[in-house]
Amino acid sequence: MSLAISDALLAGRRVGLRAKEGVIVELGPNVTPRPEDATLDAAGAIVVPGLINGHTHAAMTLFRGYGDDLPLMQWLEEKIWPVERRLEPEDVYWGTRLACLEMVRTGTVRFWDMYWHPEAAARAVHDAGLRATVAAPLIDVDGRTKAMRAAALSSLDELAGAGERIEAGLAPHAIYTVSEDSLRWIAELAAERGLPVQIHLSETEQEVDDCLAAHRLRPAHYLDRAGLLSPHTVLSHGVWLDESELELIAARGAVLVTNPVANLKLAVGRIFPYPAARAAGIQVGLGTDGPGSNNSLDMFADMKLFALLQKHAARDSAAVDAAETWEIATGRRAPQLGAPRSLELGQPADFLLLRAGAPELSFGELPAALVYAASGAVVQSTVVAGRVLMRDGHVDGAEEVLARALERARHLGLAAPIGFPQNNPALA
Amino acid sequence: MSLAISDALLAGRRVGLRAKEGVIVELGPNVTPRPEDATLDAAGAIVVPGLINGHTHAAMTLFRGYGDDLPLMQWLEEKIWPVERRLEPEDVYWGTRLACLEMVRTGTVRFWDMYWHPEAAARAVHDAGLRATVAAPLIDVDGRTKAMRAAALSSLDELAGAGERIEAGLAPHAIYTVSEDSLRWIAELAAERGLPVQIHLSETEQEVDDCLAAHRLRPAHYLDRAGLLSPHTVLSHGVWLDESELELIAARGAVLVTNPVANLKLAVGRIFPYPAARAAGIQVGLGTDGPGSNNSLDMFADMKLFALLQKHAARDSAAVDAAETWEIATGRRAPQLGAPRSLELGQPADFLLLRAGAPELSFGELPAALVYAASGAVVQSTVVAGRVLMRDGHVDGAEEVLARALERARHLGLAAPIGFPQNNPALA
Repeated sequence: MSLAISDALLAGRRVGLRAKEGVIVELGPNVTPRPEDATLDAAGAIVVPGLINGHTHAAMTLFRGYGDDLPLMQWLEEKIWPVERRLEPEDVYWGTRLACLEMVRTGTVRFWDMYWHPEAAARAVHDAGLRATVAAPLIDVDGRTKAMRAAALSSLDELAGAGERIEAGLAPHAIYTVSEDSLRWIAELAAERGLPVQIHLSETEQEVDDCLAAHRLRPAHYLDRAGLLSPHTVLSHGVWLDESELELIAARGAVLVTNPVANLKLAVGRIFPYPAARAAGIQVGLGTDGPGSNNSLDMFADMKLFALLQKHAARDSAAVDAAETWEIATGRRAPQLGAPRSLELGQPADFLLLRAGAPELSFGELPAALVYAASGAVVQSTVVAGRVLMRDGHVDGAEEVLARALERARHLGLAAPIGFPQNNPALA
Repeated sequence: MSLAISDALLAGRRVGLRAKEGVIVELGPNVTPRPEDATLDAAGAIVVPGLINGHTHAAMTLFRGYGDDLPLMQWLEEKIWPVERRLEPEDVYWGTRLACLEMVRTGTVRFWDMYWHPEAAARAVHDAGLRATVAAPLIDVDGRTKAMRAAALSSLDELAGAGERIEAGLAPHAIYTVSEDSLRWIAELAAERGLPVQIHLSETEQEVDDCLAAHRLRPAHYLDRAGLLSPHTVLSHGVWLDESELELIAARGAVLVTNPVANLKLAVGRIFPYPAARAAGIQVGLGTDGPGSNNSLDMFADMKLFALLQKHAARDSAAVDAAETWEIATGRRAPQLGAPRSLELGQPADFLLLRAGAPELSFGELPAALVYAASGAVVQSTVVAGRVLMRDGHVDGAEEVLARALERARHLGLAAPIGFPQNNPALA
């Protein structure tokens, strides 16, 4: 399979590009498509790398708008958990397909997923053409240690044949839902099999207080004692980390993924200390978190919010600039999230074409345009591994994906799709 | 001129709608288009009221991405002001046309504009088909009092024939750029002619400190002493208002417009105290602020950020809900911003059709979908005063507007449009 694109703008230069077997094989002013190439006419569109969503629970598209604006524990206990107990693989498959559709449309090419029935999520990612690291949430409170370990192992078996764009991982849910003994077991299993590990860390102040009370250690130190801070660890949130923890994380080479929208929406009370993380030398990525607690998968929106919040928190409009924000959102500041190093020969052919005529992209410096003015709507075409997943706004099979996801939401008894009981007078 | 739409969803009911001379004349399950009607097939699209942008400097689309990430005063002094001195009416006209294009695409039907050459802005609003309150910024520091007053009067003369969708106003820039004497003069002129007044108020802590130092009054009390707090006053920002000021503003019946993106971007250091403003009974609206300091005009993004920030500041995920946020963004919580009361017979035919098949709108409660999941990209068609300004994503003349706005930006010597010197390696 080969693909040729022509007449695109890459970092200010007019270029063509050929991809073969998922990799960029030609790049320059004069690239002539060959008869065997699929083609994609860029017509002055801007080529940029794709976005990397460092933390989500993709299938939760189905839960979107279900119990919003409730306090966190009430949302989980009354809304989410009862439904999750009834989840079937097909729910996860179509929920993840829908998430993939939205990601393709808004320019995400790779994501880190933590959700139930990961084999179904992996199948969805494969069918959608994206890349992902996929893992089941591991929880062993209430003495479910044996069942959890068995489930972890069997999910790895099931993920073994998921295909080359999918990486299997391990995802201990959090330090407060997995025993220290199991954290150690996970660390050993990950080391043994060379697997990445994702975990929620230091999302709430309560988590820090409880960890200190139980272990006399702050969360990152506790995680390190369990052997789980390594260059293969991706930590989500990190809102309440202190300087000593940031230094430790930097020393261990772990990645920190910040999820600004979810942090605000769930009102965790603090803004991710990015300047300190940067000063410590930590690899930082950006995530949307699950569509149940965001509720969008449009990374353009979240990168803008990331930059805005950091300016606000630092009380300095120059605290983080657009180019740096763009690097974070494209995974360039956290190589272990698996982004291509850059758009160059021999690298994976993962990239976006952005609309040439979008007013939001037509003025001033491109990084500022991308971060502050654009939304995902500027993405015209999305290419992953040399395959065109969206061509000029069109994604094959989009209608079926939405219809099937709606069926699964109905099957789960979730709030009726709109058009039903929407008699809110605010809407007229 | 009459318009009929069919097969739409309004607050959960399937309806048709007829508009004549800008007003809704029929609404119900059985609306039959007449031969003279223009038609718009809604095909299951959701009808909602349009959004009201309560504060912007529309023509600053031309300045977008020019000097981003600089500290406020450096941005103004080195970048914005030198260019603004060279501004011609045609710059404002095409900059405002471009802003109108982006607003039409993302669902804004009315906006409050404060910018130079307001007669050119008014012409642009008229030609674009939107509604706006338009005013020149009034500044009389450096003893320019006489010139400022003359300019204010002549801009009112020039705005007199601007058309029925355009309201003229007065816009003293701020308490620190207009003398108390001139504030009084503006208050009297506004009262005499029944004009609305827009002013930036309490945006920065510096403004509060300086006002206290100079007048021994906080900004709202000082403004009130000058006679400028009335039901016709629209205050922008209000970030640093205290409780006594909020009570005073409520008692005077003035409107407060919050601009969360600009406040974060310029790092003013505090979050608008919305719960206190609500408790005081103040009319509250939402604004983007100018595209130079946002840099988007997509009110969907800003309403989400408004709700998120308020949850964060209150440390309560239930602090502001989606339905309330939607009411604020559509002007329903600040009648004096000029939104139609609702979509009903006899009211202005200003509304949006939202894409029936948008995944972001297909799950859960509609207000949550609109506020948390959607972006302006869900807007399919925009109707103002019964006239279709965007039909299924298409706005007549969009290419010309962008081309002319780019010409004006080049003429002003602003940063070259992208595609030129974009050799930032982060972009490859």
